[in-house]
Amino acid sequence: METNPLDQPAPPGPGSGSLGEVLLVGTGPGDPDLLTLRALRLIEQADVVLYDNLVADGILALLPPTAQRIYVGKRRSQHALRQEAINAMMVDLARAGRRVLRLKGGDPFIFGRGAEEIGTLSTAGIPFQVVPGITAATGAAASVGIPLTHRDLAPACTFVTGSLEDGSLELDWPALARPRQTLVIYMGLLALPTLCERLIAHGRAADTPAAVVQQATLPQQRIVVGTLQSLPQQVAEARLRAPTLILVGEVVALREQLAPILARTGTPQQDRSP
Amino acid sequence: METNPLDQPAPPGPGSGSLGEVLLVGTGPGDPDLLTLRALRLIEQADVVLYDNLVADGILALLPPTAQRIYVGKRRSQHALRQEAINAMMVDLARAGRRVLRLKGGDPFIFGRGAEEIGTLSTAGIPFQVVPGITAATGAAASVGIPLTHRDLAPACTFVTGSLEDGSLELDWPALARPRQTLVIYMGLLALPTLCERLIAHGRAADTPAAVVQQATLPQQRIVVGTLQSLPQQVAEARLRAPTLILVGEVVALREQLAPILARTGTPQQDRSP
Repeated sequence: METNPLDQPAPPGPGSGSLGEVLLVGTGPGDPDLLTLRALRLIEQADVVLYDNLVADGILALLPPTAQRIYVGKRRSQHALRQEAINAMMVDLARAGRRVLRLKGGDPFIFGRGAEEIGTLSTAGIPFQVVPGITAATGAAASVGIPLTHRDLAPACTFVTGSLEDGSLELDWPALARPRQTLVIYMGLLALPTLCERLIAHGRAADTPAAVVQQATLPQQRIVVGTLQSLPQQVAEARLRAPTLILVGEVVALREQLAPILARTGTPQQDRSP
Repeated sequence: METNPLDQPAPPGPGSGSLGEVLLVGTGPGDPDLLTLRALRLIEQADVVLYDNLVADGILALLPPTAQRIYVGKRRSQHALRQEAINAMMVDLARAGRRVLRLKGGDPFIFGRGAEEIGTLSTAGIPFQVVPGITAATGAAASVGIPLTHRDLAPACTFVTGSLEDGSLELDWPALARPRQTLVIYMGLLALPTLCERLIAHGRAADTPAAVVQQATLPQQRIVVGTLQSLPQQVAEARLRAPTLILVGEVVALREQLAPILARTGTPQQDRSP
């Protein structure tokens, strides 16, 4: 847990009027229709907003014109406000009495650095709320018709991050390669060849069904379906771009049965199934 | 995948007017404020609704008075419509041209039998949509202030079901006992002593922080926090009741730092922390 470099006053008692608060709000996978009622209300009432690349444009469009918008986007190849700077900014704004809306793609507590951010807030004595969001895994699953769990095929589902932010991919391969579970890998596009290779090397069958979904729930949604063996080349040929979600497991094959009948009244889908 | 006992007509082409559809809609963990915008709209427009015990009363209250409500609740000790009967009912109603709203607690694709239900619909040629919901794990995590992932403590998060519906608890204990992951166990209250004992037997430290959350996000929410060793007795003494969610992992201990400062403007919380 990172600590805040600023001095730490005692947390305020009830009735102290000048301290603001921070609202850590999950905005879901991208489709504004998948916002929760609470998230929408907080967005519509926003005072000052911190957001990054993972918050969809259609959601930012719901902010009132009066809201102060602060872009704190972090993308590998772009200039970035370091996490410490984001943390310090939230604290400073709240201490100045502002109600800070910290928007997160997906859910704040699933690979969203939410733990670090509220750790800082707690240390600094800043009141906060966390509003859950539809995480990319369930958003994508519903949108492409791939159940994440199944009584027989997948009584377990594991979420990991394939981000190479720290320069390596230190995952618990023996555990991830176990059968009868669905693996959901967030931010794993660049690491996809390594992921597939290691899962096979640790015993997951090379013909295990696997898919990559790009921009799940958005009109630009694309999906490539294959196997652990075939997926890296298929995805390279399809030129998928981040953000993506990788799904591995027998449930992926259920989609072949289900997708043809999936009602098209929801999000439009562009298919790249082989 | 179960097949439908009824005759299977060819799926209808575009423009066929008489066939209805089924909307499998996740209603989240219970707080109506955590419904998605899409779920709320479908609920407010409902024609005929199939629901069970896991759909909160506050959400059923949003149905229009004109909606036909069909209770298909399944609870261990109560009379139950078997899953096959629910599947057949959805097919029959859709074939009669009805728009069937199948409400699910949480998310339809996380331990909700969604896979089986859409398998039946697909086989029968019934169009369907799946609308994701806030799954109990992220709903509870946000509500009690326990992050599910953390860069250092928990780069992975695994969801399993502890339901004893089939009379046994056949889980992949060696995988679940691996360190540096958060375990989320759905429907595990009855199995809690067994769960804790087996995780310890397979190598997870007895002092691993663990918690049970009852009725997460609802006004009746309660939480008991302890360790794998202590939790079964604490939960028995607190007389927790289903529905509950079990959280296991080092992230549970973060709550002790965070909870005191968690803003109380959200869902009221009754604490049973030791």
